[in-house]
Amino acid sequence: MSQLYLVGMGPGDSELVSPKAIKAINNCSDLVAYGLYLDLLGEVCKGKTHHDLPLGEEIGRARRALELAASGKTTALISSGDIGIYAMATLVYELLDQQISGSAKDDHPEWLDVEIEVIPGISAMQAGAARAGAMLGHDFCTISLSDLLTPWETIEKRIHSAGAGDFVLSFYNPVSKKRDWQLNTARDILLQYRPAETPVLIGRQLTREDENITIITLAELDAKDVDMFTLVMVGNSESRLIEYENKNAQKQQWAYTPRGYKKKLV
Amino acid sequence: MSQLYLVGMGPGDSELVSPKAIKAINNCSDLVAYGLYLDLLGEVCKGKTHHDLPLGEEIGRARRALELAASGKTTALISSGDIGIYAMATLVYELLDQQISGSAKDDHPEWLDVEIEVIPGISAMQAGAARAGAMLGHDFCTISLSDLLTPWETIEKRIHSAGAGDFVLSFYNPVSKKRDWQLNTARDILLQYRPAETPVLIGRQLTREDENITIITLAELDAKDVDMFTLVMVGNSESRLIEYENKNAQKQQWAYTPRGYKKKLV
Repeated sequence: MSQLYLVGMGPGDSELVSPKAIKAINNCSDLVAYGLYLDLLGEVCKGKTHHDLPLGEEIGRARRALELAASGKTTALISSGDIGIYAMATLVYELLDQQISGSAKDDHPEWLDVEIEVIPGISAMQAGAARAGAMLGHDFCTISLSDLLTPWETIEKRIHSAGAGDFVLSFYNPVSKKRDWQLNTARDILLQYRPAETPVLIGRQLTREDENITIITLAELDAKDVDMFTLVMVGNSESRLIEYENKNAQKQQWAYTPRGYKKKLV
Repeated sequence: MSQLYLVGMGPGDSELVSPKAIKAINNCSDLVAYGLYLDLLGEVCKGKTHHDLPLGEEIGRARRALELAASGKTTALISSGDIGIYAMATLVYELLDQQISGSAKDDHPEWLDVEIEVIPGISAMQAGAARAGAMLGHDFCTISLSDLLTPWETIEKRIHSAGAGDFVLSFYNPVSKKRDWQLNTARDILLQYRPAETPVLIGRQLTREDENITIITLAELDAKDVDMFTLVMVGNSESRLIEYENKNAQKQQWAYTPRGYKKKLV
């Protein structure tokens, strides 16, 4: 039996890793993942053969995972968040698709005998929404701002659609070292559709030791305050920020999106 | 100390309930949830006081949870999926917002002293995508087809936006006993934007004992094959269905959305 698990380990907090993910990793002899992820997962990864590849070698990782599994080694390909959301799972299926359609650069019919199980995980948008309240309480969408594989024209059109549809909007890959202007352009587009004071959640290193969460307004959003470890979530036109003090004089702050539009009939 | 946990228990499979959710429930004396959810959670709910309310009494549930916590009982309000996504978390914040703004029908200043922690869970779209491949591999959105709290005009506009933006689209609340025409209307709108052969995932009772998953085309989508326990997910214009046989002559079928648009520059 030739088994490959595609495992989402969640945002970082080990208490948000599902028992199903832990069980799958336990079954494996080989793990394909960034070293940081194995550090976050801890004990369960001990004694497994670890395969790391440089950042950016995503296709190499997916190939390695299929090769290992096809060779009879029970293998897990691990990513943070949900491996099905902007992550490695889809690359594995793209490689299989190329094998079937004959468009692959080399033939690996043995990959088609690998049993695949995908184990979902908590994605960054969910961790961010939960830590700050309930911003995903109504219709939402996600857009990756990386134009490495998607033309900017497509991304821009999508931001307009998100604005026109008044979706709560989570940006994945908001900036990178070489990419810094897209987020501000996205902000300017959204300002055509929703108020300047729309709440925006900035969540850095969510659920990890150096987590930092701030809630700002759409007008205040600036790429200089965001890095590649940050989730940016923009509320819809009805999203609200609430602030109050409890009896111990502690300031409470929550951002949420109401479940309906009852009060604002179109 | 007055503590309320808002807990997402995931789609149903107990192995997809996070350790953080289990720990929170363990801390509680009182649980507010549908009976079915407690059955799915099993052992951890034993010995807790259980508060159930009739279906449709969502505001009643949120109020009960705040009342219990404010009275000093450590309480969990539990929903399936992610409690922050089309679920109970946002109702709790709406109730707090009414207290602060003075628009509540009765004053409960003690609710503002409740410590709240939201624990996210795996949502139905993630469970469905994982069981069938990787349909959420690129930009996606979710739309609830329930027009109880959102006017149909708003929903319809949003379906057009999802179509124009070529988002993978998950429908929550696709039909109910009294609501059956919206899904077919949504299908007809999407057919204006994407091919009739676009893959559509129909996932019923995901990860539960009587799970049933089929992949059809957008043209074949029909509300009569869908009930309120079903997730409907429509691919974008690049989503693909792959089918092959492994060496044991077992048919494999996967639906996925490629991570980029490289081959199809606009």
